[in-house]
Amino acid sequence: MSFSPSFSRDAASFRPSAIRAFAKLINDPNIISFAGGVPNPDTFPADALASIAEKVIREKRAISLQYGPTRGLPRLCDSIAKIGRERKIECSADDVLVTTGSQQALDLIAHTLLDPGDVVAVELPTYIGGSASFFARSAELAGVQQDDDGIVPESLRELASKRRIKLLYTIPNFQNPSGRLMTQSRRDEVLRIANEHDFVIIEDDPYGELLYVDNADTTPMKSRDTEGRVIYLGSFSKVLAPGLRCGWIIASKEILERLEIAKQAADLCSGTLDQSIVDEFVASGALAPQIERVRAFYRGKRGTLIHALEKHFAGKAKWTSADGGLFTFMTLDADIDTAALVSKAVANGVAYIPGGPFFVDGSGRNTMRLTFAKESDDRIVEGVARLGSIV
Amino acid sequence: MSFSPSFSRDAASFRPSAIRAFAKLINDPNIISFAGGVPNPDTFPADALASIAEKVIREKRAISLQYGPTRGLPRLCDSIAKIGRERKIECSADDVLVTTGSQQALDLIAHTLLDPGDVVAVELPTYIGGSASFFARSAELAGVQQDDDGIVPESLRELASKRRIKLLYTIPNFQNPSGRLMTQSRRDEVLRIANEHDFVIIEDDPYGELLYVDNADTTPMKSRDTEGRVIYLGSFSKVLAPGLRCGWIIASKEILERLEIAKQAADLCSGTLDQSIVDEFVASGALAPQIERVRAFYRGKRGTLIHALEKHFAGKAKWTSADGGLFTFMTLDADIDTAALVSKAVANGVAYIPGGPFFVDGSGRNTMRLTFAKESDDRIVEGVARLGSIV
Repeated sequence: MSFSPSFSRDAASFRPSAIRAFAKLINDPNIISFAGGVPNPDTFPADALASIAEKVIREKRAISLQYGPTRGLPRLCDSIAKIGRERKIECSADDVLVTTGSQQALDLIAHTLLDPGDVVAVELPTYIGGSASFFARSAELAGVQQDDDGIVPESLRELASKRRIKLLYTIPNFQNPSGRLMTQSRRDEVLRIANEHDFVIIEDDPYGELLYVDNADTTPMKSRDTEGRVIYLGSFSKVLAPGLRCGWIIASKEILERLEIAKQAADLCSGTLDQSIVDEFVASGALAPQIERVRAFYRGKRGTLIHALEKHFAGKAKWTSADGGLFTFMTLDADIDTAALVSKAVANGVAYIPGGPFFVDGSGRNTMRLTFAKESDDRIVEGVARLGSIV
Repeated sequence: MSFSPSFSRDAASFRPSAIRAFAKLINDPNIISFAGGVPNPDTFPADALASIAEKVIREKRAISLQYGPTRGLPRLCDSIAKIGRERKIECSADDVLVTTGSQQALDLIAHTLLDPGDVVAVELPTYIGGSASFFARSAELAGVQQDDDGIVPESLRELASKRRIKLLYTIPNFQNPSGRLMTQSRRDEVLRIANEHDFVIIEDDPYGELLYVDNADTTPMKSRDTEGRVIYLGSFSKVLAPGLRCGWIIASKEILERLEIAKQAADLCSGTLDQSIVDEFVASGALAPQIERVRAFYRGKRGTLIHALEKHFAGKAKWTSADGGLFTFMTLDADIDTAALVSKAVANGVAYIPGGPFFVDGSGRNTMRLTFAKESDDRIVEGVARLGSIV
């Protein structure tokens, strides 16, 4: 092996996921893990999916096992449009593109909109998979401040006045990693700034249905996007099962047509068995009760974690309320480096994800992401006690 | 809707598939279709796959429905490496990356290796999905002559002496669209030119197992790639089912590591249910007998088409022998424009794909691609008669 290729400019910007590599290490049952970022498999409706899978393969092999349309299976696109309308987004099946998970949506958008050096505004902190897609197009990422109400408009306005923003990436509902819900008035303000400064918004919404309180307003920005500048992303990964790799994009006709061609080159179509299973599950009316079950499953765990944090960290740290989604985000004293503490935590039988990698400006070294998705209530309580003893 | 984004440079180079749009139109049972490019669903082992799907969902939900490793499920990577070794490629699971079909492999490679303006050498004719992935990175495509023995070395050498080739894309086994098998001596010659002129080869091999004669040598170039410059692509789409979107890459460690990061940004992982099903099917030993069944299924149809062509086109056209794969490629008199003839053909109840779009140099207007995959023997005979009457 003597050959070494010259890689592309983009490849020189590729960033492997810091947290994904870290998450791999934690499979020891003695370690109580708040470190994961994935749904709990107990929420997967496996029996129903098993029966549906068998049925769609036996009865519809010419669809469920064959190549399919790049846009997605027609009835599934219809169902997704209906979901969109339930979220107050005016749309039809023609406005939908099914993707191989939301991650592919991010990649297709980045490919279709970004040139090297383009400025992408991201929240501080932001989802690492989003950053990865933008870095992989040699874009420049610029951080925008976030508080408990979501994006701080002054921060976005300041950035927009200094730099030509091409794209803003935001997760308004129970963001990964912060767990925060952006208020509706902040969303309006963000949309106004986008209109004024003429940039695209990616509104990524994988967690909006994972809602544990009664008074949270998760209405997407896209519902008030009169200009067609918001690209809305949804996913079945958190409410159904991520292994089915089924996400979607709702966007303006002009943008969607280009994304469809990008997808044709990217993988021709998303898995048609996966789509057939999701389609059948949704068409059978099983989605709404499934979402209720998932909410009930996480609601208690979330409460347990928050209560345990109050017991062990009151006065010593701040954390987000996590009224939905899978995460709370904790901020410790400014002099604590959570990345440096990881090995001590693991040695003491507890794991978390250090928050630093979620901040594109190098800040956040005193933060950590905690998920309540994985562990039992007892282990959550014990895990927070262990965490308290080492911080 | 007043917003119009500025698209990326790449997006300006996006090319929708000319033939995919065309293939959509032909769903009329009165039309005998040689136009498809997809496997026949009767070859899909639906009963076995249905049982396996049910089982892996019920018994392994924490794997089959969860996010998985970007590289692919470990045992599946093992099985793929074994398939590689059976094809005389020295490799282990560490040399494998599972992809969302071979199309994703092409896209990841293009992203990782190509900058705008880079020269990609492709066969005349070549697979349109390959071209699409290269165009989508603003690459420049340069055609290399092909004859019945495969790539014409003089043509490749001439191109390499004039331009800096970054990448050669080739399908040596029963190429789409030409159906041709490259001889082993031609493969050696191509590899020698690549070594001399220091470019990467993508060796795409989705059809190598679809073999209808006894004396065809399908040994991949990759088996003699001492320098690590060949990126080998395989797929389960043609021997199992394309809806499972399961392909793979075998490449040198240095290249594979970059491709893995590109894939992380592209879709995190390929569908784990799909992978679990393929994994279980292969591990059970069902693949070899399945391949035998698929060969037997197509062998007769291929013979029927070739005999019918001999009857109706002898002396009027040339066609490739299609000793494997799904296609024969017909060349008519130089003054015949097969694209212009399509509507007449369809009006006469027969459809084919005009060959022009497969040639990046604008040639091939007097060619057509015919698949024997879809129709029954009777309809193949009748379809060729109809074709004969209008040409």
